[in-house]
Amino acid sequence: MTVRAAVIGTGIMGAEHARLLERQVSGVVVTGAFDVDTERCRQAVAGMPSARVFSDPIELIFDPGIDAVVIASADLTHERFALAAIAAGKPVLCEKPLAPDIAGCERILAAEVAAGRRLVSVGFMRRFDPGHRQLKQALAGGDIGTALLMHCVHRNRSAPAGQPTASLITGSAVHEFDAARWLLDDELATVTVHRPRSSRRSSPTADPLFLVVESSAGVLVDIEVFLNCGYGYEVRCEVVGEDGTVFLDAPAATAVRGAAGISRSLAEDWRPRFAEAYRCELQEWIDSVAAGAVSCLASTWDGYAATAAAQAGVAALDSGRAEPVRLPPRPELYGAELYGAELYGAKVHGAVQA
Amino acid sequence: MTVRAAVIGTGIMGAEHARLLERQVSGVVVTGAFDVDTERCRQAVAGMPSARVFSDPIELIFDPGIDAVVIASADLTHERFALAAIAAGKPVLCEKPLAPDIAGCERILAAEVAAGRRLVSVGFMRRFDPGHRQLKQALAGGDIGTALLMHCVHRNRSAPAGQPTASLITGSAVHEFDAARWLLDDELATVTVHRPRSSRRSSPTADPLFLVVESSAGVLVDIEVFLNCGYGYEVRCEVVGEDGTVFLDAPAATAVRGAAGISRSLAEDWRPRFAEAYRCELQEWIDSVAAGAVSCLASTWDGYAATAAAQAGVAALDSGRAEPVRLPPRPELYGAELYGAELYGAKVHGAVQA
Amino acid sequence: MTVRAAVIGTGIMGAEHARLLERQVSGVVVTGAFDVDTERCRQAVAGMPSARVFSDPIELIFDPGIDAVVIASADLTHERFALAAIAAGKPVLCEKPLAPDIAGCERILAAEVAAGRRLVSVGFMRRFDPGHRQLKQALAGGDIGTALLMHCVHRNRSAPAGQPTASLITGSAVHEFDAARWLLDDELATVTVHRPRSSRRSSPTADPLFLVVESSAGVLVDIEVFLNCGYGYEVRCEVVGEDGTVFLDAPAATAVRGAAGISRSLAEDWRPRFAEAYRCELQEWIDSVAAGAVSCLASTWDGYAATAAAQAGVAALDSGRAEPVRLPPRPELYGAELYGAELYGAKVHGAVQA
Amino acid sequence: MTVRAAVIGTGIMGAEHARLLERQVSGVVVTGAFDVDTERCRQAVAGMPSARVFSDPIELIFDPGIDAVVIASADLTHERFALAAIAAGKPVLCEKPLAPDIAGCERILAAEVAAGRRLVSVGFMRRFDPGHRQLKQALAGGDIGTALLMHCVHRNRSAPAGQPTASLITGSAVHEFDAARWLLDDELATVTVHRPRSSRRSSPTADPLFLVVESSAGVLVDIEVFLNCGYGYEVRCEVVGEDGTVFLDAPAATAVRGAAGISRSLAEDWRPRFAEAYRCELQEWIDSVAAGAVSCLASTWDGYAATAAAQAGVAALDSGRAEPVRLPPRPELYGAELYGAELYGAKVHGAVQA
Repeated sequence: MTVRAAVIGTGIMGAEHARLLERQVSGVVVTGAFDVDTERCRQAVAGMPSARVFSDPIELIFDPGIDAVVIASADLTHERFALAAIAAGKPVLCEKPLAPDIAGCERILAAEVAAGRRLVSVGFMRRFDPGHRQLKQALAGGDIGTALLMHCVHRNRSAPAGQPTASLITGSAVHEFDAARWLLDDELATVTVHRPRSSRRSSPTADPLFLVVESSAGVLVDIEVFLNCGYGYEVRCEVVGEDGTVFLDAPAATAVRGAAGISRSLAEDWRPRFAEAYRCELQEWIDSVAAGAVSCLASTWDGYAATAAAQAGVAALDSGRAEPVRLPPRPELYGAELYGAELYGAKVHGAVQA
Repeated sequence: MTVRAAVIGTGIMGAEHARLLERQVSGVVVTGAFDVDTERCRQAVAGMPSARVFSDPIELIFDPGIDAVVIASADLTHERFALAAIAAGKPVLCEKPLAPDIAGCERILAAEVAAGRRLVSVGFMRRFDPGHRQLKQALAGGDIGTALLMHCVHRNRSAPAGQPTASLITGSAVHEFDAARWLLDDELATVTVHRPRSSRRSSPTADPLFLVVESSAGVLVDIEVFLNCGYGYEVRCEVVGEDGTVFLDAPAATAVRGAAGISRSLAEDWRPRFAEAYRCELQEWIDSVAAGAVSCLASTWDGYAATAAAQAGVAALDSGRAEPVRLPPRPELYGAELYGAELYGAKVHGAVQA
Repeated sequence: MTVRAAVIGTGIMGAEHARLLERQVSGVVVTGAFDVDTERCRQAVAGMPSARVFSDPIELIFDPGIDAVVIASADLTHERFALAAIAAGKPVLCEKPLAPDIAGCERILAAEVAAGRRLVSVGFMRRFDPGHRQLKQALAGGDIGTALLMHCVHRNRSAPAGQPTASLITGSAVHEFDAARWLLDDELATVTVHRPRSSRRSSPTADPLFLVVESSAGVLVDIEVFLNCGYGYEVRCEVVGEDGTVFLDAPAATAVRGAAGISRSLAEDWRPRFAEAYRCELQEWIDSVAAGAVSCLASTWDGYAATAAAQAGVAALDSGRAEPVRLPPRPELYGAELYGAELYGAKVHGAVQA
Repeated sequence: MTVRAAVIGTGIMGAEHARLLERQVSGVVVTGAFDVDTERCRQAVAGMPSARVFSDPIELIFDPGIDAVVIASADLTHERFALAAIAAGKPVLCEKPLAPDIAGCERILAAEVAAGRRLVSVGFMRRFDPGHRQLKQALAGGDIGTALLMHCVHRNRSAPAGQPTASLITGSAVHEFDAARWLLDDELATVTVHRPRSSRRSSPTADPLFLVVESSAGVLVDIEVFLNCGYGYEVRCEVVGEDGTVFLDAPAATAVRGAAGISRSLAEDWRPRFAEAYRCELQEWIDSVAAGAVSCLASTWDGYAATAAAQAGVAALDSGRAEPVRLPPRPELYGAELYGAELYGAKVHGAVQA
């Protein structure tokens, strides 16, 4: 069975998802797309013979010629489209955040629980990055013993001027929140935000920020977020265990000897850095749709928890204190096995490494 | 259009090609397979609903339900199947070597030239490895100036006992022959083979070998080939230019701090090391088939030249002297632009990096 | 002029200082030593023909045959010997801490200010480590712009059982306190201490700790201190600036390819890691003694400031809050130019690199 | 006892030796110096109160106020001064080459054998480089099993125009000849020289060269020598054994993240790269002089063997063939234990690492 997928929102990420689905993912064809900018939507699916440009996103979701939907539209619209997809009984891959506020996340969670089946996946693509997968396997395999600390760095070369400072938390650190939850198999308990001296490049945004997050089991996760580091895109992570540490290595395929000594280039932004992660995420998602199975992507619960941590972070930015991450009990639908590395490893291994 | 592909020879590589085509490559479905061991063939395509197990490979090639064929059978059979595919007018991806002897390569070349169109691609997958692509781009971009030297290392953890010493050249160094030709955009002129002290693990095979190859333009390429290095799979390459050097970095996504200090693991064998290369190669090949275009994989000419260099290497192993690589003039069908990095880069960039 | 030096306290570090002075440092001979364990003292200076074993450390300090004194005795005795040396008008190199409590530091500072000349140097050897020197030069040279953040890791393979948790701050993090002050040319303002989940190896000591330190200019310094990391000794430091970052690289002279992949060993403890730092520190100190000049080692003021930061850290360990580092105004004797990188660089360059 | 040392030849290296002896080495004072340029000699020992500027180098050698002599004068003068030192019964450290031709080496060897005691050490400083020491220890400790291959790279940023091509062998590769003999504990048997395409920067010198050297035991040593690589000084060495490989790591103490990505600088030339090696070599030499013992530096025999290999290399450059290294039987004075790693390791460990 070939999955017929559609994309809502064809900005940079949505257009890229459409391209990947059509050209790089097996078992899927793009049959629909919507964007508030119809011309941009047309360009995004140019050369995709089966792709129909819709004028109404809800119509797209309910169209019988569409089996599954990627939501890559503006953050505030995620909830509406996710709820519609649940109502239509169709699998949906929602770019992060699931919803920018907890109330929205709660409504999606409630709808999915009410529907009694998991249809929503959230696009935390790091779970499919080969490096992050190796971290997960090392932790699950006991290579470094019990985790105690986790050091994270998340830098972008530059950002458009005038970003609200909170966006460093809701837009960037939220990836570390999910990565920490997933790698440590643990919920986050508190978030503290420090404001170091700020870069002149970033004014008036306070940038960088430094977050200290505590997990329920007491693992301390520190996160540097830097939107305007000036030189490249970089994601680092080291998990420190009782018996050793495991960390992401700089993923350069080549290096150069020249005037700058021995140098390894860094990615311009997140797209080349996580190109493989995006592709594998989409392939796994399409495979799960084709199989009528629950995907091993981040779930509605994961999306909710990430937004809850981000909200605690924004509160901490204001208060200067440690703020609790408020989470309801996890519904049974998102059972304890969810993050099981073996399950995940087996699936991804099959999908990725042959 | 969905390409209907078949695989001849479903050993380790052939089964892997079938799996990748069916599960990881866009725009293709596996509709046929053949192997001398029918049961092995059945297992290789289990779970592929459109795949028919053929009892006759020539029948498979001419079957109207098959658009393109991967040849992954025993080396000595490549010629027969390639000639049949040319006769059938179907694109074929032939695992290296194109043919183990020059006479066989000549016959394929002659058939293709007579047919007047390029149908045969050869599976030198390194051309699609991200690291090798970066080497190519650095050279083409002038980052290191004119190339002068190229240092190569090609190690396998272990090999079955009793390999003929010549297989280090025909089975392993042949990848470096193609990589050197492609990276340097130059034909190879002579091959010398040195026999260092041999590993006790390899007896009676003389292993490792050390080759010194001269290109037509005078670039010196040295190659260590080691079938039984004992610890992992490793491919290294440094091109030394007038202004700097560029080299493959050890492609570890993570590293560990522990009892062994700071360590980065190496691949077990070539499959995980070149997993991305194999997938991209197949995607590019299928895209070219779908488009009715010549692929940017290695051509019949490239396969011929690699076999000619390997044959010179085997002669040098016996003679202890530099032996010339004997090549006829390149037919017009394989024009000078063939290795153009820009053309290639554009294509692969489109296919791989979004 | 050959400097006649003596060592008080011939435990591990004191004996090593004596050995370095006698065998690896130019322009000095060991003429005296004292230890509460006379036999241990005798062994420490065995084979040093000019070394006299004293039975009274104050007598040693005032002996006319001794020009300069290294204090490597128990922390609580540092004050007494430093005051005696000031009284005797002799240069002294005091191992860290200058004194374990602020009151002691104050008395030494007062005595030195009263004497009107700087005689006391403090053994913060990292200032002479080639890696730390390069960090300093990069910062001073503007390579990375204004510093914003500093990430530090300080790990020991193991520690004797039963260490008080405060010792992670007073014995280990104190090196980072001095390094931060020196690299950033800035005083420390506040210290916060987090207690992550603790290693089973360390019980009942709370280990590791994670410190967040703010400098007067707002640079945020985070420090992981881990006494029982289980695998080796490791000091890491990355300074993040507006335009880039500079960081200590793992200082392995060689690497191995083998069963563990590609691995670089780590030092067993701080002595091999900082062997070059200790030697250069002593050479610079002896050179300054011979020249009758103020050394460019850490000063009494630096020792005071490090102890003040450590005391804030111990308070923060108890309170769970950010605690201020309490410092009086800096006396004129320790002028603003003190940390000037150029002065320092010139001196060290002369002493170390030819 | 303080050793009274003198330096003959106060060019770049000789002046550096004088400085190190006077300022960085324990147990020695510079009491004499000679150079054909008296003014240059005066400047080299300015600020060394005991140093007398001699007008006659032979008078210097026989002066009773001088215990040991460093020969750093023009290559052609080494023989004359070494013979004089042997006649005077004084230890001498002769910069490489011992003598530029075999006849000269033979005369020094004969004189030393006739004297019946080893007085001459040769300045192959790599034997004291921490990285090379670790290679030696790994080989001696069996970490990688029996050595089979050795890959070497020796690059200089630039060289004065008009260097004779042979100087790449006699001035540069000669260091690899000694390193290979010492690391492998084996004599060299044959040398082959390849001429790759030459750099435009080097014309008319043929540069780089690529050497293939076979040891008596069959280990194959390949050496890239490149005088004008354009970007920095670099020495690489990987020894490939039956069970693994060990190699020099790029010895950067720090790295930078910035516009060039992650970069590690390279040394400008050999002096900073081997600063520690030079100092340790001199310290060991002075210690051996003070003890009246044979030094563990390279011996007259080692100097002879290196020159013999260089001469074979120059012959091979002309002939294009493998040329034999011609060596007489090793005199008993330079016994088989000479290169014993344990002896060496113990000594150097004592001298270098505390």
